[in-house]
Amino acid sequence: MKKIITKDYATMSELAAAIVLEKMMLPKRVNLSLTAGNTPVGMYEILIDKLQKMDFDRSTVHYYNFDEIPLVGERYGVTMSALNTAFYDQVHIDHGNLHELTAENNQAYDQKILQDGGLDLVVMGVGSDGHFCANMPGYTSFDRETFAVSFEKGDGLYTAITHLTDKEPASPYVTFGPRTILASKQLLVFANGKSKAEIMKKVLEGPITEEVPASILRTHPNITFILDEEAAALLEN
Amino acid sequence: MKKIITKDYATMSELAAAIVLEKMMLPKRVNLSLTAGNTPVGMYEILIDKLQKMDFDRSTVHYYNFDEIPLVGERYGVTMSALNTAFYDQVHIDHGNLHELTAENNQAYDQKILQDGGLDLVVMGVGSDGHFCANMPGYTSFDRETFAVSFEKGDGLYTAITHLTDKEPASPYVTFGPRTILASKQLLVFANGKSKAEIMKKVLEGPITEEVPASILRTHPNITFILDEEAAALLEN
Amino acid sequence: MKKIITKDYATMSELAAAIVLEKMMLPKRVNLSLTAGNTPVGMYEILIDKLQKMDFDRSTVHYYNFDEIPLVGERYGVTMSALNTAFYDQVHIDHGNLHELTAENNQAYDQKILQDGGLDLVVMGVGSDGHFCANMPGYTSFDRETFAVSFEKGDGLYTAITHLTDKEPASPYVTFGPRTILASKQLLVFANGKSKAEIMKKVLEGPITEEVPASILRTHPNITFILDEEAAALLEN
Amino acid sequence: MKKIITKDYATMSELAAAIVLEKMMLPKRVNLSLTAGNTPVGMYEILIDKLQKMDFDRSTVHYYNFDEIPLVGERYGVTMSALNTAFYDQVHIDHGNLHELTAENNQAYDQKILQDGGLDLVVMGVGSDGHFCANMPGYTSFDRETFAVSFEKGDGLYTAITHLTDKEPASPYVTFGPRTILASKQLLVFANGKSKAEIMKKVLEGPITEEVPASILRTHPNITFILDEEAAALLEN
Repeated sequence: MKKIITKDYATMSELAAAIVLEKMMLPKRVNLSLTAGNTPVGMYEILIDKLQKMDFDRSTVHYYNFDEIPLVGERYGVTMSALNTAFYDQVHIDHGNLHELTAENNQAYDQKILQDGGLDLVVMGVGSDGHFCANMPGYTSFDRETFAVSFEKGDGLYTAITHLTDKEPASPYVTFGPRTILASKQLLVFANGKSKAEIMKKVLEGPITEEVPASILRTHPNITFILDEEAAALLEN
Repeated sequence: MKKIITKDYATMSELAAAIVLEKMMLPKRVNLSLTAGNTPVGMYEILIDKLQKMDFDRSTVHYYNFDEIPLVGERYGVTMSALNTAFYDQVHIDHGNLHELTAENNQAYDQKILQDGGLDLVVMGVGSDGHFCANMPGYTSFDRETFAVSFEKGDGLYTAITHLTDKEPASPYVTFGPRTILASKQLLVFANGKSKAEIMKKVLEGPITEEVPASILRTHPNITFILDEEAAALLEN
Repeated sequence: MKKIITKDYATMSELAAAIVLEKMMLPKRVNLSLTAGNTPVGMYEILIDKLQKMDFDRSTVHYYNFDEIPLVGERYGVTMSALNTAFYDQVHIDHGNLHELTAENNQAYDQKILQDGGLDLVVMGVGSDGHFCANMPGYTSFDRETFAVSFEKGDGLYTAITHLTDKEPASPYVTFGPRTILASKQLLVFANGKSKAEIMKKVLEGPITEEVPASILRTHPNITFILDEEAAALLEN
Repeated sequence: MKKIITKDYATMSELAAAIVLEKMMLPKRVNLSLTAGNTPVGMYEILIDKLQKMDFDRSTVHYYNFDEIPLVGERYGVTMSALNTAFYDQVHIDHGNLHELTAENNQAYDQKILQDGGLDLVVMGVGSDGHFCANMPGYTSFDRETFAVSFEKGDGLYTAITHLTDKEPASPYVTFGPRTILASKQLLVFANGKSKAEIMKKVLEGPITEEVPASILRTHPNITFILDEEAAALLEN
């Protein structure tokens, strides 16, 4: 594991973008799994800017969404909608290169990734509760590959999910499990801001336990953590 | 993770030898970490036979021992003695290519491996209690890199260790931790015989827990398990 | 480049088989390109024997033929027929995992390989004239990717080809070019017998020139040559 | 091979810096070989800026100079002086991580690189005569590893070299050969400006010949070319 501490969010975003751009420039098929959310906003701005100034064969860059909450009556779920807006639509990615994860295909998804050559890079944030993708404390088993979690209107998960969106979620949600992520050739985790300081201390320096799902990530042979100074403020080593 | 089930011990040994030989034949430095014990006896016989019939530059093949129990009054500990007898001396490996793990150097060993380019392959067995290297149930934290375990004459560990040898062990023993092993580019675990059937079921199909140390291994992105039919007899998937 | 000299043909075949088996046992999709002909006969015997004693997921092992001479009135050309007989049919490979090269698909083949994740290993012999795949002296440009060569009944190529088979060849024949081969992640070249000694000296120690097509192979960053003592007899270094 | 065409020199420099930064952030030893000269000026400015805003373990990043012209009476030759000024001194690289190429050590240098784990990335420009490192037309053999070229005061080479510096060169100069470069795991070639348009057309679309030394580079399995629009102006494909 490698730990990079940056002066600020801008540097964190530039370094994350560098890792993604390096993959895009390789003379081979690359399978990327990129996160939605607030952390990557700066990274996507840089990627969009750079991609507008580069002419190259993009047909070999493929995108695999790592989780999804379907929405009642909508074509795209929460993750796909967010990624379309933040990145995919902005840079006009061919639909054949976008690989949605859905309630229908999730059981065969690890086998699909395997046949497609495996993931080359996953870029992830960590939730303030220690979740990565949708591996939440209390719902995480390190042994899981891609899986679906059912919920019902009114139960705790339903309530938690509706906090993320003003639209109505459709059960089940789906996510890569820990083993799907750990099977990737390279992992990048980034975090910024004071609100992530406590959880990043647990993730990087606490026990490896399913109660802090992202703690398992530091066992991966090729993982880089990029934290701004605020998110790294509580680290001891 | 890939699981190979072989008809017999001989095939298991041939396949394990194939994986080691492939590494030796690469046009680059390779850092290997090989196990002592009963499981690899067949593999070493094949390797010794093949190496006697091959002429090539062996200077780029390096060996890193993954654990050691020092012995009072002896130059070499339990592991180094066993590997010398089973393999190193048989094929006349240059001493500059043998990297002992010792009570003196263990704290700097992960950094040494890092500067030496990382481990390319670890070949391991699993104990019937689920240990790998010397990560024993009750003494395992998934977060550990290389570490030393102290013991005193008469305590439980001392007794357990003296069962392994008729010589007197010197405290501390030293071992790669889970994260040292999981940082390797490739892992090979092999097991044979009825006596391993129960533990291999736990390792491959039970929960990932420090109580079964080797269970963590199946999260590695490039691990192959080779089991003969007897060791695989209780597997369901 | 790594050069291995073996006591005999049997050892050469065992080492070549080890390299192929190592790939098959990896927990990922592997794309192999294997040669037909006399040199690999021993290797295929070992592979067939081992595969009969191994139970594992073979769905991730894919095969890409690197050349083909179509035959008038036949479903399969010279290469596919030979590989079916020597290996594919013997081990019952699923047809979805066999990727024929044909007169029809050759122009799109490099792009197909790229989208399929690239070749992981090519296993090749060298002709006594220095050709590899069907890159013959006089017809070789190092810059070529997969290409087709047309011929007509009665011309020199037609005559040369009919020496290889007692059936009637159909123009054009097709072959991976030097850059298709050099784009593979790993290369294995093997040669045995006195009849290969002169050409192997040129390939390994002579100038890199299109007149000795296989001479370019030694520039690859991950190539291993395995030669028996007879094929290596004229080497100086 | 992958070809990236950028709108301008700034984008070319940012993408080159991204590839270098990605390597520095990997959790492993990385061996880099970076070029001096005019082309990388923009890249080094970005690297220096980013490295000042990053806190991480730099001890695993090693630098190997790929050529050198010693200077009479000077501690450092032309390349080392230029790299010290442009980059090494700016970011305070530990001397133990700088691996000079010299007239004294050049014969053992390929073996040293091999034992050090091989080069992970070479970043190179191309001269307007097609040279890379100091592989000049008329002095290039594709089969060469690291080598020395002797010259005498007053001969053609001496005159050519003195054009590069206002100090007196000391014979011999030394350089990685084509095979040293092609043995690297990854290659990056960049070029900008109208003055490079003709040679880049030859390098990328002309015959592979020792008369245009850099033409051989496009056979490497993992090479990326980054050109600004001016340097790419004459390309047809």
